[in-house]
Amino acid sequence: MEAEPKVEPPSDQWADMAWTMLTTVRRQSPLIQCITNFVSMDLMANTLLSAGASPAMLHTLEEIPHFTPHVHALCLNVGTLSADWLPSMKAAANFAFNSSKPWVLDPVAAGASGFRLNACLELIQLKPTVIRGNGSEILALSKASVQPTKGVDSSHESTDAIEAAKSLAQATGAIVAVSGAIDIVTDGKRVIGAHNGVAMMQKITATGCSVTALIAAFVAVDPSNAFEATALALSVFGVAGEMGMRLAKGPASLRMHLIDSLYGLDEATLISHVKITTFCD
Amino acid sequence: MEAEPKVEPPSDQWADMAWTMLTTVRRQSPLIQCITNFVSMDLMANTLLSAGASPAMLHTLEEIPHFTPHVHALCLNVGTLSADWLPSMKAAANFAFNSSKPWVLDPVAAGASGFRLNACLELIQLKPTVIRGNGSEILALSKASVQPTKGVDSSHESTDAIEAAKSLAQATGAIVAVSGAIDIVTDGKRVIGAHNGVAMMQKITATGCSVTALIAAFVAVDPSNAFEATALALSVFGVAGEMGMRLAKGPASLRMHLIDSLYGLDEATLISHVKITTFCD
Amino acid sequence: MEAEPKVEPPSDQWADMAWTMLTTVRRQSPLIQCITNFVSMDLMANTLLSAGASPAMLHTLEEIPHFTPHVHALCLNVGTLSADWLPSMKAAANFAFNSSKPWVLDPVAAGASGFRLNACLELIQLKPTVIRGNGSEILALSKASVQPTKGVDSSHESTDAIEAAKSLAQATGAIVAVSGAIDIVTDGKRVIGAHNGVAMMQKITATGCSVTALIAAFVAVDPSNAFEATALALSVFGVAGEMGMRLAKGPASLRMHLIDSLYGLDEATLISHVKITTFCD
Repeated sequence: MEAEPKVEPPSDQWADMAWTMLTTVRRQSPLIQCITNFVSMDLMANTLLSAGASPAMLHTLEEIPHFTPHVHALCLNVGTLSADWLPSMKAAANFAFNSSKPWVLDPVAAGASGFRLNACLELIQLKPTVIRGNGSEILALSKASVQPTKGVDSSHESTDAIEAAKSLAQATGAIVAVSGAIDIVTDGKRVIGAHNGVAMMQKITATGCSVTALIAAFVAVDPSNAFEATALALSVFGVAGEMGMRLAKGPASLRMHLIDSLYGLDEATLISHVKITTFCD
Repeated sequence: MEAEPKVEPPSDQWADMAWTMLTTVRRQSPLIQCITNFVSMDLMANTLLSAGASPAMLHTLEEIPHFTPHVHALCLNVGTLSADWLPSMKAAANFAFNSSKPWVLDPVAAGASGFRLNACLELIQLKPTVIRGNGSEILALSKASVQPTKGVDSSHESTDAIEAAKSLAQATGAIVAVSGAIDIVTDGKRVIGAHNGVAMMQKITATGCSVTALIAAFVAVDPSNAFEATALALSVFGVAGEMGMRLAKGPASLRMHLIDSLYGLDEATLISHVKITTFCD
Repeated sequence: MEAEPKVEPPSDQWADMAWTMLTTVRRQSPLIQCITNFVSMDLMANTLLSAGASPAMLHTLEEIPHFTPHVHALCLNVGTLSADWLPSMKAAANFAFNSSKPWVLDPVAAGASGFRLNACLELIQLKPTVIRGNGSEILALSKASVQPTKGVDSSHESTDAIEAAKSLAQATGAIVAVSGAIDIVTDGKRVIGAHNGVAMMQKITATGCSVTALIAAFVAVDPSNAFEATALALSVFGVAGEMGMRLAKGPASLRMHLIDSLYGLDEATLISHVKITTFCD
């Protein structure tokens, strides 16, 4: 946390890094184990496939010791969490933690219940590499992690979310990403914003879950640069959404064109659209 | 059940009501908790989002007491029911019943097994606001509710279904909707028909489940007019299907265009297509 | 296994058989029970519907004795298998076995863990009519069935897969299909290849699972010719993919066009594209 100051790449270098990262994913096809909610499985798997990664949706406790050693990153998502799935998530996260394998947490609706918030807090003890949520989720986690209180605010201002994200990152050691009109990424000190994407993506279920899986794929191929990889995944997914929006007539066709665009993204298109900026240092 | 006779709005008023209802859903974005089958989760969530509502697919027993108080309506669907999911459904329905929150039951394949039929009957004890099924499902439920016998007829005539629906409505106090070439809605006395939709919608899995969720969203914003809201939801979904069919080349493109159309439905299109008629009084 | 030698139909007869088989499925609309993974349920159900069959995704142990007697074939898929689902699969397979009802096994990632491999081997004891997997899965099963060893090879050559498939077919009595650039089908003696499909289908999650369900539908209407029905299902699905590819711009639009094409396949298109050849006798 108190590491030497780092310098973010200049704005135009982000675009080059995005293309390098995407081509690396396409070439290496990292195996990403997803223990996720029922709603998101289809789109999440297709997002990973279209980006060039290999999804594996195994969730059973008995298989974690055999299978998780072979994956390149792990994506955990509590969207439809039930008590019988939590041990698998913890076992997989624990394995990832002990073997220094990157893993990403999507704390869907973290503040919706004590059960869910506690599950997220238990998972956070296992040191996720990245936590990605919306503003309400990050606020709920940050409050509970930094100054454990019960109440969960579902309404909030985005500046609150940035401070909450920084606090959560500092308290947990994770990179924290907050999705919104501008996606925020912080390591507790640095804060950058990914400005890609279109508003209609929020009208498609599981787009948030799916970009979390894409973060896992990006971090898998460059684990020592998880901060940058997180921002780049958010930006690349957003660019795919922007390209998809040109052809879309509504949320369902946007979903289709987004995946097609992610699959077909070429260097010129990606480089001319990636927009990542430094917020504060 | 023995309330004063009500008068349905004249045919052309239904169209105005449809637009009012849809715009209210878009403006209020009611939170709809869906405890549903695995097959339908994706399309159901996307249907609710495209209509302007907010889906929440939480199904875990531990979360019902914390989360269900915040939702505006509940949608229960037994399509892939297993014994471990039933307590959550009952807890959620019980909560809705005790707090006068509207809830809708989709008794998928109610007659397929004693397990499933009994589960549906137990849920019906918790006073659903609306029950929506196909003819076979409503017949199975009506027989079991009105004159408990074992046998379940999977073949039937639609006139049977209307009588069965009326009997079920009278026995349970629920609005009962029967999907078919013409969708039938009854409160046990009044019977109306929603004439929208296209046959190919039956070739897309989970369209029935999804319109049940849309009924929940419509009833959520006008709970005192559940009879009308049910018919209007069926009609609006059907109009979206008709608009989608103009662009569709098969079931998968119809699915996409239906959701796009539901998202984009404008006043003129909706009003000129809604077709709801009184069957009998 | 030691039956009299059979003669495959000449190459051009396969095309006629494909059309006959597809129209029979469309006319009879066989009821196919699928106990499958969470990721594939949507596409699998839509594949069956678009082919004219009737999907039923019931998976609960309590319902097997009541429901499975009514189905025409069974499709079991271990993609997201957990210990609590296995008894249902075994009960359904056992029922199918005892009542001479065809059933098809998709041993997804059979070699991923001892838990999964053992589950597959237990299911194979219940005499599946057809086993369809990719090369790695068939190799893992074949090794474990024919000469029980622990190690599972994930890399392999396709010639190995053919020999493994023949061995597995001989050891189990099942028709064995190996998906790949060319789909291989064997009954342990005869080997044929279905040459349809496009590479991009591998970039869509659950296409393999879905073609297994289509095999179940084809075998359901012609159970005494399971060898031919398996090859024809693979070929018909592949032709739908080829037709879909003409309109597709990426994996997501291919998925849509594939389903639309399967729904709309006409005689001339199908007959001119089916390509099945004899490999060896």
